[in-house]
Amino acid sequence: MKNANYSNTRSSSRSLELRSRRESLRSSSTRKPKASQRVSSIRTSEDDAQLVLSSRCRCESCQLRFQSAAYQLERERIAANRRNVLKEIDDSFDDMISDLEQLVRFQSISVEPEKLLESCKALDWMANRLTDLKFKTYDYPIENNPANCFAVPHQKVLFARYFSSPSKNTLLIYGHLDVLPVQTDCWISDPFKMIAKDNLLYGRGVTSGKGMIVGWLQAIECWLKVHSDLPINIKFIVDMLHEVGSTGLQVHITAKNDFFMDVDFMVLDVNSWVNNVNPIVPCSLTGWAHFGVEVRGANKNLESGLASGLVYEPMIDLCHLMNGLVNDEHEIQIPGIEINMKRLSTVEWHLLESADFRTYEYREDLYVRRLRFEENKVEFLQNRWCKPTLTMHGVEGADSHPGWRRILPMKVMGKFSIKLVPDQEVKHVFNLVKDHMRFLKTELGVKTQLNVHLLDGIDPLSWATDSRLIKAVCRAVEFVYETDVITTQAIPVCLPIANVLQKLINKPIILLPYSKRIDKHHTENESIESLNVLRHTKTCAALFAELSMLRPKCKCNVLYQYCNLRGVQEMLDTERNVDINDVNVEKKWYQFKQKAASSDAHPTRSRARSTTYSLKKYLLLPFRCKRKIKKRRNQST
Amino acid sequence: MKNANYSNTRSSSRSLELRSRRESLRSSSTRKPKASQRVSSIRTSEDDAQLVLSSRCRCESCQLRFQSAAYQLERERIAANRRNVLKEIDDSFDDMISDLEQLVRFQSISVEPEKLLESCKALDWMANRLTDLKFKTYDYPIENNPANCFAVPHQKVLFARYFSSPSKNTLLIYGHLDVLPVQTDCWISDPFKMIAKDNLLYGRGVTSGKGMIVGWLQAIECWLKVHSDLPINIKFIVDMLHEVGSTGLQVHITAKNDFFMDVDFMVLDVNSWVNNVNPIVPCSLTGWAHFGVEVRGANKNLESGLASGLVYEPMIDLCHLMNGLVNDEHEIQIPGIEINMKRLSTVEWHLLESADFRTYEYREDLYVRRLRFEENKVEFLQNRWCKPTLTMHGVEGADSHPGWRRILPMKVMGKFSIKLVPDQEVKHVFNLVKDHMRFLKTELGVKTQLNVHLLDGIDPLSWATDSRLIKAVCRAVEFVYETDVITTQAIPVCLPIANVLQKLINKPIILLPYSKRIDKHHTENESIESLNVLRHTKTCAALFAELSMLRPKCKCNVLYQYCNLRGVQEMLDTERNVDINDVNVEKKWYQFKQKAASSDAHPTRSRARSTTYSLKKYLLLPFRCKRKIKKRRNQST
Repeated sequence: MKNANYSNTRSSSRSLELRSRRESLRSSSTRKPKASQRVSSIRTSEDDAQLVLSSRCRCESCQLRFQSAAYQLERERIAANRRNVLKEIDDSFDDMISDLEQLVRFQSISVEPEKLLESCKALDWMANRLTDLKFKTYDYPIENNPANCFAVPHQKVLFARYFSSPSKNTLLIYGHLDVLPVQTDCWISDPFKMIAKDNLLYGRGVTSGKGMIVGWLQAIECWLKVHSDLPINIKFIVDMLHEVGSTGLQVHITAKNDFFMDVDFMVLDVNSWVNNVNPIVPCSLTGWAHFGVEVRGANKNLESGLASGLVYEPMIDLCHLMNGLVNDEHEIQIPGIEINMKRLSTVEWHLLESADFRTYEYREDLYVRRLRFEENKVEFLQNRWCKPTLTMHGVEGADSHPGWRRILPMKVMGKFSIKLVPDQEVKHVFNLVKDHMRFLKTELGVKTQLNVHLLDGIDPLSWATDSRLIKAVCRAVEFVYETDVITTQAIPVCLPIANVLQKLINKPIILLPYSKRIDKHHTENESIESLNVLRHTKTCAALFAELSMLRPKCKCNVLYQYCNLRGVQEMLDTERNVDINDVNVEKKWYQFKQKAASSDAHPTRSRARSTTYSLKKYLLLPFRCKRKIKKRRNQST
Repeated sequence: MKNANYSNTRSSSRSLELRSRRESLRSSSTRKPKASQRVSSIRTSEDDAQLVLSSRCRCESCQLRFQSAAYQLERERIAANRRNVLKEIDDSFDDMISDLEQLVRFQSISVEPEKLLESCKALDWMANRLTDLKFKTYDYPIENNPANCFAVPHQKVLFARYFSSPSKNTLLIYGHLDVLPVQTDCWISDPFKMIAKDNLLYGRGVTSGKGMIVGWLQAIECWLKVHSDLPINIKFIVDMLHEVGSTGLQVHITAKNDFFMDVDFMVLDVNSWVNNVNPIVPCSLTGWAHFGVEVRGANKNLESGLASGLVYEPMIDLCHLMNGLVNDEHEIQIPGIEINMKRLSTVEWHLLESADFRTYEYREDLYVRRLRFEENKVEFLQNRWCKPTLTMHGVEGADSHPGWRRILPMKVMGKFSIKLVPDQEVKHVFNLVKDHMRFLKTELGVKTQLNVHLLDGIDPLSWATDSRLIKAVCRAVEFVYETDVITTQAIPVCLPIANVLQKLINKPIILLPYSKRIDKHHTENESIESLNVLRHTKTCAALFAELSMLRPKCKCNVLYQYCNLRGVQEMLDTERNVDINDVNVEKKWYQFKQKAASSDAHPTRSRARSTTYSLKKYLLLPFRCKRKIKKRRNQST
């Protein structure tokens, strides 16, 4: 990292670079022996050009845009940059493994309050790493929420941002560094000391937050090494309470609303692979609805000696009512529940059929004796991912303590939840549940009062699989994995924080495939192929390139002076004329950074000139708006 | 009490006394205007003699015994004593009311830990009162039981004993001074300031512990006033945690086992009246059995996102299984549950029919909208008292907190209890429940593991209604209430502490009728007829007399030197020759008491002579045993 090569890509000779890359590949081939890695790292500029031209979309507007010479040139330039970065990623594979090793070492188990210090250390490590990468970081404390017994005081959330230029897209990356608890005796090695074995990396967190974060860090580092700047603006949220429902994060997102105003896209890593061949870019998220069936006989509990057998007991009625939700085979009995469900296409059906999945392994992971649909893989997976399912959670208001008491509860609330899939709606399902409960009440002659509550609900999400954004993502993934990518709406991903972010921030979501769905994420011996970690890092870098090619929207309408902000790119442009071989280049860079930081967090160009142009409103307008006005004038004349 | 008349009953002129009683009645008639009180207080010696002769039993052995001249003489003497005491009770009615007033003032609410000091004060009051009545008292701290969240450190239980003579029966009285909490705004006056209104006494505790205790204290005080000694030995247990399940008391009973060795009978006051006419002496207690239906899919809970719809959920199976326990009408569906139940006799059926009871009032007391069997009083009461009933209490192991969580519980335990009535047995019912659950499991095709646990159970109790003890009790009650007493086995009383005491101490139980079953014991505006309090006190005194007439058993086999113990009676016998008009009589009495106390708690006669007769084993034997040996010798010769 310290020997970063600040090459000016525009002036560098492409053929020379290619040669040097091939040489470096040969020299490092003993270190990275994997065939597939080699394949991706020896892609030539011809490959890149071909990829740029062979867009999968054949619509007229796209074709037109592709023929635009300027656009073509820009794409070629970015493709060259990407090529350099991917090579750098290959070269610094060991650094990445070392990063991951360091991260895995933190025992940041969020459900165990005594591990708070470890969580804080992990977050500090991350903050330092981001600061080194020229990010500006902010950490906010998360207040103890009495409703959540797991929440710990002084737990933090980290926000960070890298601002390159107002004319670039801004990507928000969500990551988390907390992990689930471990049962040490079930692991082949210490879960907090990562080991490599049979091409697999073992360690707690490698298939979830930690592994994903390392990919992003490495991709950013390599971009900066090679080009001194990133092709997009990046913002980070790093969560330490992901595994306990991201308590507190939502509060901070709402409070720090302006942090997210300039965000164009959000990206979350997901474990979405189904088989070993095709990466999957999911375009939908499951939702959920938690219901409370309140049955009330009176407002206060009775003593069973006084009232047993004499009153219509709410617990008995609740039992009768809840019983009507599912049949003996545990199938949902709410009429109409599956009407709005998205059906599987033939492709998706075959995808499930080709899944590298064995139900008996899953059964062992869950420690249960028998699973539903154990004999039919497709039906099992369909139930797991694509169909609404019902779970009963418990009863509130009744005796739940060990031992026995003479309480006759007179107001109880049975709780169940339904997993929702596209295109169901919470509101509609709530109505179905209410109707069904009322029907059961009449049918069973229940004498107590019934109320059905919606305790919580979030609609499932789905978005177009053929938008420019998803196409860009697919291009990035396909470029790295060299195989067809499948986009799907009917196989949604269950990632509640994504629904929450979408609800709060309301920007397009990218779900980037990381590991296989059937990998052992939260179980013992969590492991991932080391090749997959490398590929994911490359996908991140490729995604930066692809997103930089999407035309950014003007943000003056949300942040008035946004387009006049000074970013890293401008500073670099100013400094471009310095000799690349000047030994003081690093020093100069930091001087410039300090200058910028001391003037203001977001110094605006207009402020410097405010005395001169204070009366000229026109000049105070952001330059994009000015250009628009000019254009209109030209058209009218 | 200070002007106690230490008359020697054997030497006093009966006719003179009768005259003086009548005079005192006339003089105090303005103070106690109630007709029924007068009736009971002007009973003549002829009445007593008639009562003694008209025993309800006509069996040969009883008739023979009645003809025994010595027995006849003894009965007449005791009847005379009783007459004097009952008159004294009438005279000191105001004292009793004052006692009750003082007791009601203590806010000894056992479910409210902050009222601990009040509880302690109440117990101290009781201990002082008993000490004044020549009782020896012991109080033991009750340790905080973590299983019971209500238990309070330093809460105490009081044991007390009055030992008159080893040749008298020993009665154990159980009483409690704690009360249930109050909703002050629902009362016509301050619940902790007793008031009299429309012949009713209003105050928290008057129909339960406090009212009952005052009756016993007053009966004892009047006996001592009139005769300086009691006709029986008395032991007290005063509990301050009755309303929260008498936590800790059971530990002390087990630990202080020897305290209960010489007990002949236990008496507990119960609210057993059904109509306004007939007092009821119940001869049975309900039992209970608490069950846990454990359904287990795995040993640890799952996350609903991972497993929803894929596993056979224990909560759903539990719902199906519990559903099979009762039908839509809340009737128990366990086959054979009512087989061993004692059926109502015609008398008992008519008793229920004559009950002064309105279901709508009961409904209002419970704050429910509708009751089962609301239209049929007899069926309602039968379900309330005479039939097994089932209550569902809750679910352990499932989510019972407010709000919602993504827990999929994999090991849950549904809890229900069945009230048992004579002659059901816990063991038998447990087998029926297990069989039914297994049947349901097969029927419903439940895939999870099922275990049925018996969490707690105590057999219902019933005892002969025609034993000498119950007959004696009936005689006492009939004498005071001047009406037929109904003894019943088929209408059991629900008084768990009685089952517990019977289990631990294993002596015959007397359930003495106190107030009406349908009185408002635990509800707002708790009240009792003042006449009833007086009558109960008289019944207590009459019971002492009746029990003194039952021939006591020799207790040498349980407490070796018991029959040689020196009691109050012996001391009194020694002092009998002092002049009754001697002003120093009280002083002498206390000197004697002090002497006895200083020598030993239980000085034995044998100890004094131990040096002289140390070699003669025969003489060391208790005198009863000696008599037996003598008798046998006489018979053999």
